Amino acid sequence: MALITEMLENHPAGARTSDPRLLTECLRTCGECAQVCNACADACLAEEMVADLVSCIRIDLDCAEICATTSAVLSRTSTTGPATASLLHACLAACAACAEECQQHASVHQHCRICAEACRRCLNACEKLLASLS
Amino acid sequence: MALITEMLENHPAGARTSDPRLLTECLRTCGECAQVCNACADACLAEEMVADLVSCIRIDLDCAEICATTSAVLSRTSTTGPATASLLHACLAACAACAEECQQHASVHQHCRICAEACRRCLNACEKLLASLS
Amino acid sequence: MALITEMLENHPAGARTSDPRLLTECLRTCGECAQVCNACADACLAEEMVADLVSCIRIDLDCAEICATTSAVLSRTSTTGPATASLLHACLAACAACAEECQQHASVHQHCRICAEACRRCLNACEKLLASLS
Amino acid sequence: MALITEMLENHPAGARTSDPRLLTECLRTCGECAQVCNACADACLAEEMVADLVSCIRIDLDCAEICATTSAVLSRTSTTGPATASLLHACLAACAACAEECQQHASVHQHCRICAEACRRCLNACEKLLASLS
Repeated sequence: MALITEMLENHPAGARTSDPRLLTECLRTCGECAQVCNACADACLAEEMVADLVSCIRIDLDCAEICATTSAVLSRTSTTGPATASLLHACLAACAACAEECQQHASVHQHCRICAEACRRCLNACEKLLASLS
Repeated sequence: MALITEMLENHPAGARTSDPRLLTECLRTCGECAQVCNACADACLAEEMVADLVSCIRIDLDCAEICATTSAVLSRTSTTGPATASLLHACLAACAACAEECQQHASVHQHCRICAEACRRCLNACEKLLASLS
Repeated sequence: MALITEMLENHPAGARTSDPRLLTECLRTCGECAQVCNACADACLAEEMVADLVSCIRIDLDCAEICATTSAVLSRTSTTGPATASLLHACLAACAACAEECQQHASVHQHCRICAEACRRCLNACEKLLASLS
Repeated sequence: MALITEMLENHPAGARTSDPRLLTECLRTCGECAQVCNACADACLAEEMVADLVSCIRIDLDCAEICATTSAVLSRTSTTGPATASLLHACLAACAACAEECQQHASVHQHCRICAEACRRCLNACEKLLASLS
């Protein structure tokens, strides 16, 4: 079992959500997406045609930043903070935009194909967690 | 002149906003609010009655995290990314909640009074920038 | 295969390390440790005896912050930046201190036991990656 | 007076340093440098000759990330954490490398000239704070 899952099960105040798996999955995919988006931006910078990927790099960097913060805020697992829902909406928006942008380069650049996949997974997990909070 | 202001004036693509002062002010207050919220959480931890400030600490930490990310995303100044508006909404929500929470302790704890002030300034700057983007 | 591992294998410039598994493992444990330390700080805040855990909370928060940044910097996988080694040293120091602090509470608080374990894993991965860089 | 300065003066545990101005100045320059480095990376991405600035962009992004984390860790002002000194060393290394890289483009790109200046200021403030801690 992942340590963060074990952590949720041993929180003195209990989990804040009726289904801890949704929180765990969102934590997992936010963490993954943050790293993959940063790696995709770096890979874009290594491409010969970097000038064609400038917009993709910016969207990657914003998505990495927002996923990392969502991961940190969700890690405070006992309570749903007053900004959690709107932060999840921002994370959704960043992932949707990054998935769409990277998908356009997916047939040419493997890193963009993988990044689009990471963004879709994170998007799905955020949507499910949001639905369970409301 | 602050270096970040000078930076905005020397960006090869120009500023993304019709009024660069709104962006500069939002960058300034987000950076300040992130530091002040972290300092307030630390000051709460140093209070004898820390048990009464647990909720304040959590809200401080979320607000610090979200303001820091908003600062980073806004620092990519040439374009308004697809998640910028929703991130500004999350920042607004975090600052509003933190201002309200800290204001309740403002007469007892100076650090909460100062933190509430930083949150209100950041809230105002985010609102004005959001209005200028739409 | 984890998406970040797939990412490393598809980077146009190739991996920066002779053994990509060391980088992957360091990325995985830094990401995990950042979340677990934030969760431990939150769990400490939920304990009745929070006043006894103030130092643990501060060390948790610093460790979470530094692990998250190490994760982000290591995600730019194609090159070893000029500050990577010293950042890994800071991450080592933060994890060692947090493992030691949490271990002292491990018999009483399950979350501290789990957090100490996450810190030790991250510490080990940072040490191995550092050794491979030099 | 800046709110963060006022915060330091109202901390229940007192400032951790014999000279609070050194801490305040380091907080100020770290926050500024994080924003300016992100803005410089974005400006580099907007240059026609972006392919020549790939290394500068990577160094900018690492420096922004490390300065932001140093700012967050220093914001917990009452105590010097076990990783603070090594984090300041990492921040020093990141700023020195970024100042050197940006200085090479300073005569051509105003944003690199400004960024080099922000890095030098942050470097100086980190050095002085480090000296006062030991």
